Amino acid sequence: MTARGHVHPVILCGGSGTRLWPTSRTIRPKPFLPLVGSRTLFEAAQDRVSDRTRFAPPIVVAGTQHCDLIEAQARGDHRIVVEPQGKNTAPAIALAAALLDPYDVMLVCPSDHHIADEAAFAAAAQAAATLAREDWLVSFGIAPDRPETGYGYLHRGEELPGGYRIARFVEKPDLGTARAYLATGEYSWNGGIFAFRAGHYLAELARHRPEMARLVGEAVAQGRKDGSRFLAAHEPFSRIEGDSVDYAVMENTDHAAMVPADMGWSDIGNWAALADALAGEPGLPDENGNVARGPADLDGCSRVLAMSDGPRISVVGLEDVCIVVAGDEVLVTTREGAQRVGKLPGATSQGKAR
Amino acid sequence: MTARGHVHPVILCGGSGTRLWPTSRTIRPKPFLPLVGSRTLFEAAQDRVSDRTRFAPPIVVAGTQHCDLIEAQARGDHRIVVEPQGKNTAPAIALAAALLDPYDVMLVCPSDHHIADEAAFAAAAQAAATLAREDWLVSFGIAPDRPETGYGYLHRGEELPGGYRIARFVEKPDLGTARAYLATGEYSWNGGIFAFRAGHYLAELARHRPEMARLVGEAVAQGRKDGSRFLAAHEPFSRIEGDSVDYAVMENTDHAAMVPADMGWSDIGNWAALADALAGEPGLPDENGNVARGPADLDGCSRVLAMSDGPRISVVGLEDVCIVVAGDEVLVTTREGAQRVGKLPGATSQGKAR
Repeated sequence: MTARGHVHPVILCGGSGTRLWPTSRTIRPKPFLPLVGSRTLFEAAQDRVSDRTRFAPPIVVAGTQHCDLIEAQARGDHRIVVEPQGKNTAPAIALAAALLDPYDVMLVCPSDHHIADEAAFAAAAQAAATLAREDWLVSFGIAPDRPETGYGYLHRGEELPGGYRIARFVEKPDLGTARAYLATGEYSWNGGIFAFRAGHYLAELARHRPEMARLVGEAVAQGRKDGSRFLAAHEPFSRIEGDSVDYAVMENTDHAAMVPADMGWSDIGNWAALADALAGEPGLPDENGNVARGPADLDGCSRVLAMSDGPRISVVGLEDVCIVVAGDEVLVTTREGAQRVGKLPGATSQGKAR
Repeated sequence: MTARGHVHPVILCGGSGTRLWPTSRTIRPKPFLPLVGSRTLFEAAQDRVSDRTRFAPPIVVAGTQHCDLIEAQARGDHRIVVEPQGKNTAPAIALAAALLDPYDVMLVCPSDHHIADEAAFAAAAQAAATLAREDWLVSFGIAPDRPETGYGYLHRGEELPGGYRIARFVEKPDLGTARAYLATGEYSWNGGIFAFRAGHYLAELARHRPEMARLVGEAVAQGRKDGSRFLAAHEPFSRIEGDSVDYAVMENTDHAAMVPADMGWSDIGNWAALADALAGEPGLPDENGNVARGPADLDGCSRVLAMSDGPRISVVGLEDVCIVVAGDEVLVTTREGAQRVGKLPGATSQGKAR
């Protein structure tokens, strides 16, 4: 169906929908919400790989419960690989890889990130695909703009055409370490975007996580097609010990590379991050840095995000606060507190009776 | 109906319902809401004068639009005097005075204040009635507990039995002046609670505001009874130039006295004041001074008031903030900002289409 040489986008639609609660819920998590601009994050993720001269139609990996949302927001030709259970990214990517030709280059993209500069993304994707064809396992290294302690970092090593070897993967650092990383200019955020040949990924997975690779193989062999969906078999998949692509493969392979990407990236990991992403949208923030989505009156406020699906939000005298009204829930959090939203009773008890 | 010597409570139910918006609305303003405890402020105002060995049944002065609320919350025998229009307190009190015997002692009480110590109120009322029988026009002087700049002050003069002459009325002071007042111990807040003989009040009004007194007289003469209601005539009343009892009478008479009253008083003039009143209620504030009324989850918060008529409020990391959810409105304000709530578009546009 697609010319050999095309890059195969693999869009991951996992996620539990707690960190942007109450707007993001288990039944309609972050990828499927129009958080920035008028497109949902999933729609935008598809649009970034919509150039059919370069990209094949995407493979979307998701749980059963989100297939209807995916169909409703699909931009055109696509396949869905249904994970029987969430097992983190390494098995999800392996399912998609198993459906491709071993020499196909995959571009693995989370569906819940925001990328302001789509041209920069396209250029990085091109560089990553080129390295992948030379048998590198490539991670996007996001240019850091602050000493963020919530992400892993990539330390760049030897220069490669269009990128670098990864000298070292670094776990989430403390603030002092993050500041030092930022100062050197040698560190990038690990953005969770990857490119590699399908067969190369599966081979490295088999080497470093043989049991996982075996069970994915069984789940594919015992799986079945259902229209445009491929349903992996439940029983073998459920026995997988879940792990991330970073832990399972990237940190273990001796072919890890990175392409630098300075593209206005955000994982929109919490309400403060969304506020920042929205504050970068043209025309959105007022002269005091406030962003309102939905009816809102802000009096004497600075850097307030007010987001409502209906009721008016009136705010007096606040700074650096996010206020979210969705359904029958009202959330008010400081920027610092935004990281704790996913642990709130409302976020963790979704679907349970109050 | 009542023994001579009884004090006649006059409960004023004016007010526009903007400062505690969105809970207080034009159609259901502050007196008729259970803001502190389970009683509405109007119910509590009646209960404070319910001892029929000392008090006659109350006269309630209100606008037409609130008569149904008054009947619904009435604690027993009462009369309603219907003001055709809001004209501030001096004409409202004059209407009630005109329906009483000139020698009757009136105790004029706002319906929208909170008084934590009802025994102290009763003692002050007794002292005020005694002075009123000796032809003083008596104001309650509230013991100040902070250098409040939002109230008028009374400077006490010569001592009287159970009270003092008022040496001077002081307009809302600046903070430095308020601090100095507090330090002297000679100043009280003007709490808007009064006692005087009905005829004495009308005589002083005729002396200092002759046109107002004349028009009130006409509104009463042309008024009509309707069951337990007395409807003042619209036309003359509408021509009154409204004024407060302080400006029209108390500051002009040479018989102004005060009784000291230390009774946990609050005019609940804004959300911060309500937060303070609620924080004084037994069992209400948590160990960090937060008060929740309605479903709320507070994480890392101090001195937060969260008040909802239905939706859950989840709050992370905030201090000294009031969050109110009522109907289809959500208000978030700092304590300082609480004074500006009445000027918000939502508060001023009540009843108008959005």
